[in-house]
Amino acid sequence: MQRTDFGEMACSIARTLEVAGEPWSPLILRDVFVGIRRFDAIRNELGISKKVLAERLAWLVDHGLLERRAYSTRPPRDEYHLTEKGWELCDVLLAITAWGDRWTAGREGPPVLIRHHGCGEHTHADIRCAACGKPLHASEVTVEPGPGQGAAVHHHAEEAP
Amino acid sequence: MQRTDFGEMACSIARTLEVAGEPWSPLILRDVFVGIRRFDAIRNELGISKKVLAERLAWLVDHGLLERRAYSTRPPRDEYHLTEKGWELCDVLLAITAWGDRWTAGREGPPVLIRHHGCGEHTHADIRCAACGKPLHASEVTVEPGPGQGAAVHHHAEEAP
Repeated sequence: MQRTDFGEMACSIARTLEVAGEPWSPLILRDVFVGIRRFDAIRNELGISKKVLAERLAWLVDHGLLERRAYSTRPPRDEYHLTEKGWELCDVLLAITAWGDRWTAGREGPPVLIRHHGCGEHTHADIRCAACGKPLHASEVTVEPGPGQGAAVHHHAEEAP
Repeated sequence: MQRTDFGEMACSIARTLEVAGEPWSPLILRDVFVGIRRFDAIRNELGISKKVLAERLAWLVDHGLLERRAYSTRPPRDEYHLTEKGWELCDVLLAITAWGDRWTAGREGPPVLIRHHGCGEHTHADIRCAACGKPLHASEVTVEPGPGQGAAVHHHAEEAP
């Protein structure tokens, strides 16, 4: 079967999925984010095959989300650290976490709590309009052709509940 | 190959990926979000096989992200609409879009522009702390065990459904 090239679509969602949409990649980023940085530790945590983990780590390094840093020279061993690009994708993971907590956690409640260093409170990610600071809902925006879109299609979001 | 059951992990990221992490699902949600609601139209837009699209739409309906509404009775034809759960995942797609615009769009600039009805401005999604309203960065939070942590603590990825 042909592999669809999501990265070639003129769509930032598709291009982001191309980088990190294969399900393991966000979970690997999550592990590195919480401080699980070494191959065997990530492998233990995720229960993933060596082959798949090695592939995904190489992919995430190639795409500039993670970088390798040696923590041992004899034997040579690397650990993985988030780049700025990777850290910013982790911010998006916080938004995914908030949705998952709300819609998938059930009665038991959220698996983890997020504490914000800035204010010291337990929190979750709020998605807000960068222009006016109010909550940004997909049901309250219009999607217009941007400079990176060849054939322009003008679509409106409509019919919010 | 065994299918890993991400939905069983005590992790809201994994559980969200279980619902919408297969790459086509977010793109289908995106299409419905911009008003492409009918099977053939989505199929044309994504260049996806009938079989895969039918499977993904059924999955998204089963998981409460989309609902079917008849738009024709002779012949019987449905279109797909976002539920509240689906709309809120589209809010997360806006956060993904902002990351993709920043890190994947290149010189051409973003494929689409987002205009916020509330303020009338072009905007992007800002991820903010729900408690204090300041920008929420993954690098500035602590992840603590939550009430739902015990739920699947003995559940590891190697267990297939």
